[in-house]
Amino acid sequence: MKHYAALYKNELLNEVIPFWENHSLDKEYGGYFTCLTPKGDVYDTDKFIWLQARQVWMFATLYQQVAQKQEWKEITKLGADFLENYGRDDHGDWYFSLNQKGQPLVQPYNIFSDCFAAMAFGKLYEIDPQEKYAEIAKTTFKHILKRQHHPKGKYDKSVPGTRPMQNFALPMILCNLSLELEPLLGSDKVSEVTDNVIDLVMNTFYDERTGFILENVSDTGKFVDSFEGRLLNPGHAIEAMWFIMNLGIRKNDNALINKAEQLLFQQLEHGWDEKYGGILYFMDCKGHPPQQLEHDQKLWWVHLETLVALAKTYTYNQNPKVAEWFKKVHDYTWSHFRDVENGGEWFGYLNREGKVHLNLKGGKWKGCFHVPRALLEVWKTLEKV
Amino acid sequence: MKHYAALYKNELLNEVIPFWENHSLDKEYGGYFTCLTPKGDVYDTDKFIWLQARQVWMFATLYQQVAQKQEWKEITKLGADFLENYGRDDHGDWYFSLNQKGQPLVQPYNIFSDCFAAMAFGKLYEIDPQEKYAEIAKTTFKHILKRQHHPKGKYDKSVPGTRPMQNFALPMILCNLSLELEPLLGSDKVSEVTDNVIDLVMNTFYDERTGFILENVSDTGKFVDSFEGRLLNPGHAIEAMWFIMNLGIRKNDNALINKAEQLLFQQLEHGWDEKYGGILYFMDCKGHPPQQLEHDQKLWWVHLETLVALAKTYTYNQNPKVAEWFKKVHDYTWSHFRDVENGGEWFGYLNREGKVHLNLKGGKWKGCFHVPRALLEVWKTLEKV
Repeated sequence: MKHYAALYKNELLNEVIPFWENHSLDKEYGGYFTCLTPKGDVYDTDKFIWLQARQVWMFATLYQQVAQKQEWKEITKLGADFLENYGRDDHGDWYFSLNQKGQPLVQPYNIFSDCFAAMAFGKLYEIDPQEKYAEIAKTTFKHILKRQHHPKGKYDKSVPGTRPMQNFALPMILCNLSLELEPLLGSDKVSEVTDNVIDLVMNTFYDERTGFILENVSDTGKFVDSFEGRLLNPGHAIEAMWFIMNLGIRKNDNALINKAEQLLFQQLEHGWDEKYGGILYFMDCKGHPPQQLEHDQKLWWVHLETLVALAKTYTYNQNPKVAEWFKKVHDYTWSHFRDVENGGEWFGYLNREGKVHLNLKGGKWKGCFHVPRALLEVWKTLEKV
Repeated sequence: MKHYAALYKNELLNEVIPFWENHSLDKEYGGYFTCLTPKGDVYDTDKFIWLQARQVWMFATLYQQVAQKQEWKEITKLGADFLENYGRDDHGDWYFSLNQKGQPLVQPYNIFSDCFAAMAFGKLYEIDPQEKYAEIAKTTFKHILKRQHHPKGKYDKSVPGTRPMQNFALPMILCNLSLELEPLLGSDKVSEVTDNVIDLVMNTFYDERTGFILENVSDTGKFVDSFEGRLLNPGHAIEAMWFIMNLGIRKNDNALINKAEQLLFQQLEHGWDEKYGGILYFMDCKGHPPQQLEHDQKLWWVHLETLVALAKTYTYNQNPKVAEWFKKVHDYTWSHFRDVENGGEWFGYLNREGKVHLNLKGGKWKGCFHVPRALLEVWKTLEKV
């Protein structure tokens, strides 16, 4: 497994990062372009807070973990200044999107904008310890915890009382975000938050009877036989497992790490498309047609997060089954998502058969994040084997 | 062209309608099941107002236009009673969905629930002239006009002022709904509403320079270079053209009908997939990747509405180009969406290559509407040739 480290490092530093350095910087208005063609041309100039914040986090992380290059710090600040100036409404909640100049387009209906903003400013504070960055990260995190049980606020369209549900995404993100912010929040606070979200992820959303991690369960943690209740998102669940492994390592909790490995395989083996290879995007736990028309597509982040989860598991236990699955997912991912013709960032969206289906390197939901983060994580993880 | 009439009639009366009669009736709680497998088994019991109302409209229309069968009237009432009892909130706005028993699940954020409810009760009043049905249709229509410039109300996530946009769907639906409700609204009111929406559809949303009908334009009717502004939905635009033709016939306005034919062909020729056949679901008017991951799929309603539009055009002018395109779309539609194995209702969702992609006859967005309405419209239209 160790030999993969150099491959992932090379792809990160010589292909993917240069693509974003060369094509994504908006030197006129600040922030980043994320809607980029395969050659790196900008096809849309809107700025989505998820992606702005994730790119800030990514370059701050490179600066911290790879090399203290001044350019990387400047790229970090290009996005951070833009976010600081334009990203929040009067309540300090983060908009969903802005236009090129930073004027707000879409209201703060989506709490994950806040999650990625907190993650960005938390990491920025580590490489540039200005108090204002810590303040933004901490205040945003406080807002997230306050909003966590009603994250959509007035934009929530469900009628209260009829079918109260809870969603997997926020507890799952909090597993990672809390750890990311540990330098700012302190160890006790992180333990308090993560004990709760670990329990949610591993007990409430995990359905022991079927072995599936459900995307939505009732307010009391029960399976609900509806479109939302039957929904599976294998990539989402697998990504959560490497967050849980990091928490298991932090707690020195071998049982938790072992359980995460078990759940990882339950989702991966079920999500793997035996016919065409790759991992399906959405499934219905009872095998009914999902409402998501894109359910059988193959998405970049699903595969990259799976590689991270498998690399972490392998480093922990050197289980040959893990190595075997790593090779299988690696082979599919590198042969289908990489852009052999143009190099640079990878493609993101394939149809079920594995053909490129959206001819883009970045868009409204794909920016400088999953590919470089996974390349970095796998490189750094397997290097230690 | 006339020979198609018998084919469409037979499919309607001997395949599609029996499927819904046999499988969709919830005799326990009222209303209809719409989530049905290829053989007609119920896989989800939630009730979506769009689809409940459309099925009421469909059976009332069959009763009115095909045969005064008592069973059809009873099926109409099964849905109408359910809607009347459970469909509205305290303000008289229509929920988006209910559970099987009629308890509300999703708030009235979607004005098209109201549009289809008005259409249902308007038609019901024609076959069963109880004052309460007229009242529901008229009140609902009034609410729609009141909400038309801010249809999403508090669920609208756009920030006011930055990029004010208007959407094509409501004016387009109003073209048809006003005509449907003419017996209740009176001729003057219909002329007033439709003059305005015809102008919107044919001048504001139609972009003369490119020949495209845009899904979204600015508040002043300008093209906006953003994901929403670049969006095309050929099926939507083509469906609007047969609504416009009906209005042209009502107004005895040949220029309007001719323009509708021209716009129909501009959308159809651009939307046709030369590689695999069929009409694409979404496109970007500049050829960029759309944000809709399902953009290249082939949807039943797109093809059926196109057949209606072409049949109407042919009856009007006997243009051989129209007959040629009718045959081309007919051949694709009948050979790809019909269920040769099980008969009954047709499939709805194909992938780009034309293979069935969601193995269902009905779901959250597909009910007893586009297939039977189009079969009826084409039959009745071509019969007159």
